Amino acid sequence: VKLYDVSMTIHQGIAVYKNNEGKRPILEITRDFGEGGARESKLTIELHTGTHIDAPLHFVPGGHTVDKYDPAQFIRPCRVLDLTDAETKITRSHLVRKDIAEGDFVLLKTLNSLDNPDQFNPEFVFLAFDGAGYLIERKVSGVGIDALGIERSQPGHETHKSLLGAGIPIIEGLRLADVPEGEYMMSALPLKIRGAEASPARVVLWKP
Amino acid sequence: VKLYDVSMTIHQGIAVYKNNEGKRPILEITRDFGEGGARESKLTIELHTGTHIDAPLHFVPGGHTVDKYDPAQFIRPCRVLDLTDAETKITRSHLVRKDIAEGDFVLLKTLNSLDNPDQFNPEFVFLAFDGAGYLIERKVSGVGIDALGIERSQPGHETHKSLLGAGIPIIEGLRLADVPEGEYMMSALPLKIRGAEASPARVVLWKP
Repeated sequence: VKLYDVSMTIHQGIAVYKNNEGKRPILEITRDFGEGGARESKLTIELHTGTHIDAPLHFVPGGHTVDKYDPAQFIRPCRVLDLTDAETKITRSHLVRKDIAEGDFVLLKTLNSLDNPDQFNPEFVFLAFDGAGYLIERKVSGVGIDALGIERSQPGHETHKSLLGAGIPIIEGLRLADVPEGEYMMSALPLKIRGAEASPARVVLWKP
Repeated sequence: VKLYDVSMTIHQGIAVYKNNEGKRPILEITRDFGEGGARESKLTIELHTGTHIDAPLHFVPGGHTVDKYDPAQFIRPCRVLDLTDAETKITRSHLVRKDIAEGDFVLLKTLNSLDNPDQFNPEFVFLAFDGAGYLIERKVSGVGIDALGIERSQPGHETHKSLLGAGIPIIEGLRLADVPEGEYMMSALPLKIRGAEASPARVVLWKP
């Protein structure tokens, strides 16, 4: 079976949101071969780094945390939608052509997948509020996108709030350049971090 | 499909190896609703915390790192072996009865799965060097165990060194109490952390 690894590599030079240096992951070696005969290290990571899952608590006060998702929500079929025709944002009009059915877990492939994964693009293509509204209407079971954020330039954060408020999980930071539009199986499990509003995840797709 | 979530929950009170306080994960809130309208946090985690994957570099100088594993090694069939008859360690004699075939990814279920996941048990059941040798002979494709370490009380760390030296991935920190012996599908993907000798992982099993 051919797997598509659609995850970003976590390292200090990875693109971080708005180039905020405080968001860079740090890998620190805490034990090494000279001393105790083994390599051990510690990672400090902002939970929205690289490929990651958002839980409702990210934008909904009192919303549930990432450890409360049913893991079955993240090992399942998904649909990659080619939206490379969207230049700045994905709106309802881009999505209505895609024949989205109830229960689909949709991964939005945009021009972002061509960006350098180590360089933050402040002009990334995002999911507009009306596009999110359409996905909620269609009762999708999840949404992924190839940007570090599913929205920008919307002061009320309406895309995040409407999706997470409707209990729809969001995957951010996908890399979809090599994945043709179509149906796949997906594994995108978040870590089980108690109390956290998000988790980094390794995401892979394959043809069943 | 019924999933078995065989992962430990990551939190500050989780059992850590030898009760080393420096190994406790720390979740720090870096932004909250009062300020910017969203919850964001940062996790500091020793890479051998909870359920995790070891790469060769953990015990083999110059060995490859966790990001170099082919993800296909971690989405695949596996076999849960009931070894609850082993009182202190799993030896060749426990394993020869299990009809292990070339390519099997074996998960060793022991009495450890009954331990409190928030309390380190210094007497945990481990895989003895001769047991590891038998698994290498059988050419298994991976080994998992329900302990934070796959060995203890072996001064040369021969179980780790022989398995990782043979390129066999190790999963530690599984929770298998609820999983009957048998064949399952498994997703156990490590995060893609550049240069790291290990990674936390969410591990789930299901019946195909």
